[in-house]
Amino acid sequence: MPDATHDPALKSWVRSANGHPDFPIQNLPLGVFIPLDMGSARVGVAIGDMVLDLTMAPVAEDVREAAASPSLNALFALGEGPRKALRARLSELLADGSPHRAELEQHLHPMEACTLLLPAKIGDYTDFYVGIHHATNVGKVFRPDNPLLPNYKHVPIAYHGRASSVRVSGTPVRRPKGQLKAPDSETPRFAPCERLDYELEMAVWIGPGSTLGNSIPVAKAASHVAGYGLLNDWSARDIQAWEYQPLGPFLAKNFGSTVSPWVIMPEALEPFRIAQPARPEGDPKPLPYLLDEADQAGGALDLALEVLILTPGMREKGMAPHRLSLSNAQHMYWTVAQMVAHHSSNGCDLNPGDMLGSGTLSAPDAGGFGSLLETTKGGKEPVQLPSGETRKFVEDGDEIILRARAAREGFATIGFGDCRASVLPAN
Amino acid sequence: MPDATHDPALKSWVRSANGHPDFPIQNLPLGVFIPLDMGSARVGVAIGDMVLDLTMAPVAEDVREAAASPSLNALFALGEGPRKALRARLSELLADGSPHRAELEQHLHPMEACTLLLPAKIGDYTDFYVGIHHATNVGKVFRPDNPLLPNYKHVPIAYHGRASSVRVSGTPVRRPKGQLKAPDSETPRFAPCERLDYELEMAVWIGPGSTLGNSIPVAKAASHVAGYGLLNDWSARDIQAWEYQPLGPFLAKNFGSTVSPWVIMPEALEPFRIAQPARPEGDPKPLPYLLDEADQAGGALDLALEVLILTPGMREKGMAPHRLSLSNAQHMYWTVAQMVAHHSSNGCDLNPGDMLGSGTLSAPDAGGFGSLLETTKGGKEPVQLPSGETRKFVEDGDEIILRARAAREGFATIGFGDCRASVLPAN
Repeated sequence: MPDATHDPALKSWVRSANGHPDFPIQNLPLGVFIPLDMGSARVGVAIGDMVLDLTMAPVAEDVREAAASPSLNALFALGEGPRKALRARLSELLADGSPHRAELEQHLHPMEACTLLLPAKIGDYTDFYVGIHHATNVGKVFRPDNPLLPNYKHVPIAYHGRASSVRVSGTPVRRPKGQLKAPDSETPRFAPCERLDYELEMAVWIGPGSTLGNSIPVAKAASHVAGYGLLNDWSARDIQAWEYQPLGPFLAKNFGSTVSPWVIMPEALEPFRIAQPARPEGDPKPLPYLLDEADQAGGALDLALEVLILTPGMREKGMAPHRLSLSNAQHMYWTVAQMVAHHSSNGCDLNPGDMLGSGTLSAPDAGGFGSLLETTKGGKEPVQLPSGETRKFVEDGDEIILRARAAREGFATIGFGDCRASVLPAN
Repeated sequence: MPDATHDPALKSWVRSANGHPDFPIQNLPLGVFIPLDMGSARVGVAIGDMVLDLTMAPVAEDVREAAASPSLNALFALGEGPRKALRARLSELLADGSPHRAELEQHLHPMEACTLLLPAKIGDYTDFYVGIHHATNVGKVFRPDNPLLPNYKHVPIAYHGRASSVRVSGTPVRRPKGQLKAPDSETPRFAPCERLDYELEMAVWIGPGSTLGNSIPVAKAASHVAGYGLLNDWSARDIQAWEYQPLGPFLAKNFGSTVSPWVIMPEALEPFRIAQPARPEGDPKPLPYLLDEADQAGGALDLALEVLILTPGMREKGMAPHRLSLSNAQHMYWTVAQMVAHHSSNGCDLNPGDMLGSGTLSAPDAGGFGSLLETTKGGKEPVQLPSGETRKFVEDGDEIILRARAAREGFATIGFGDCRASVLPAN
């Protein structure tokens, strides 16, 4: 339920926050940062163009202690109650007229002077496949008449990703080498990837989690979500096509994944919750362990998602990034609560700092596809860029930028900040 | 090359080591243990029935420091040189006539009074599929005439597993629940797994590793292997059959994996290295990034692998565990060096404490299959046990025990110790 922290009339004494497209006082996301020339990493809160050092703020003692860590894991572990209390407290502290202004002003750092780090030490990273339009588009390549596999509408499909190679926004990604096999060739060759792609995904950060052998009921699953981010699940389509049978993607994905630095608290997104996107008439009802009325009623997010590209040619001409795609987080067939409940339904333990990817979130129509594989139909229909360049897949020097923004009349706009990375040539 | 530490005539002043089937002085594996009533976890060396506290041994300063940790990660990170020096030093210290006997005797703990822990904090766990007979047996179910997929002899197939649910030998495994769909049913139901299986695998522990964007050449890959263990990759066959398309195994595997506590140094296995198992005439030559002459000449291990079962019925009758399978580590189509080189070939970083699974290592013939799926032909031909019981798959209360032993004339026998776990009923 929206509360005082969501009041669109609320202003901050941090002036850049007021009207800020991403970080108004109604957002208050957490991240890990190193202040300019000040050594150690600690937890901060984004407010406008500034970062508040949470270790120096008058908040609950256990929160301050947890904030002194170079990752959000300890804060995530505290769970929903302390997080909600922290949000309410930060909203007071940063609001116009707060008696703490003088004290806190010394602990504000310009964001552009800070180094932003990976938000958490990721124990395990699991990538789901809940973007139904993406699954349909990819499935069509193999099965034009029956693109979705029979399990898709029963099982929230997922696989394990590589935790070690997840990097924070701004870290360049090295083009991978791998085995490529042309359809007309008998044998593969080892060469730099020729079909490098992005995938537009949401990141879900896990809070308290569960112990091995126990599951999280779907009705309690939302309380184990610590927050949200953006995830670019870089993919080497040619490596993937040759390696993925029978056990799924491996080297096609684990050379690097890019995640946004700011963790948007679930509470900041409350006003943008909508009913679980209509399952078409006749779709199977989820099994009881995946079914919760409250979740069906408000388990989806109306959150615009964008992919932009900035090529070397555009940079030379001083052009702004070009939008490749506009999609929305509501295109998830399964809710985040269903993802969490399913993941733990067999007793697999989830831990604070684990990251879930949503899978690629494509809109149903061209213009809203979350990968170049879909947008260019596997390279057959190149994208025309305003610089005169074209792209079938991502080229060296290209920068891919993901953005997310929630907007609704009567509420302040909430943004995620950029998730961006440029591509370095293969070694 | 075998050296003085492999001399079969070498005896230890720790009497139980002499003739010990697993831990003679020629083995000297490392593990993490808590001595009885002595609090903190630290690194130890298995010698006969005893564990030597490595933090109290006169070894190199950096090794002692690393040994004070509750995981082997820091020791793994030191790499090959320090490990070889440690092995040579331990061999001297524990040999008959060592002047250090009196000093070290106080730091020996009976193994049965120690708690043995997971050897490392696993950053990422990757499971390969290099057991060619297993891949063939499983492939036959789907493609009787052409069981191996076209990529198998080009790509060391692997997928990412779940690191958080790996447990040390002795920890019971809870039977998972999940979506099961009978072939004759339209829809799945959520119920306890009815086709619980084990998988006989080797574990490979990663040493120094690599940084993101860089690869490890195959000729240097062996130096990034810190040691070996046994791995039971518990598998829920019914959950797997329904969930695994198109992205591979997920909940069918991540409810628990069991690993042996002792890490066998590569040097202990030197005498048992053999030529890479003959690729049948006409098999494709590995691509250059996977090809190294020394690796082809000695990259495989002649190491007997066993699976045993102890059922509640057998326990009641005081029976010993019954052998279900006798296989060998030489049934890997790809060497461990090829696995490491392939994993990093795209720039994916490998880190100290990462664990690789080999995949199920079945022998070519019945009697040597590494899973019940193969042994009972998917439950169609139950195994007869000496207690009069039969098994199609693993039942509640059953204990599965993996063992590995290397034997060769002119050398002491080297064992891995048990990798065992019993099955608890579903919650």
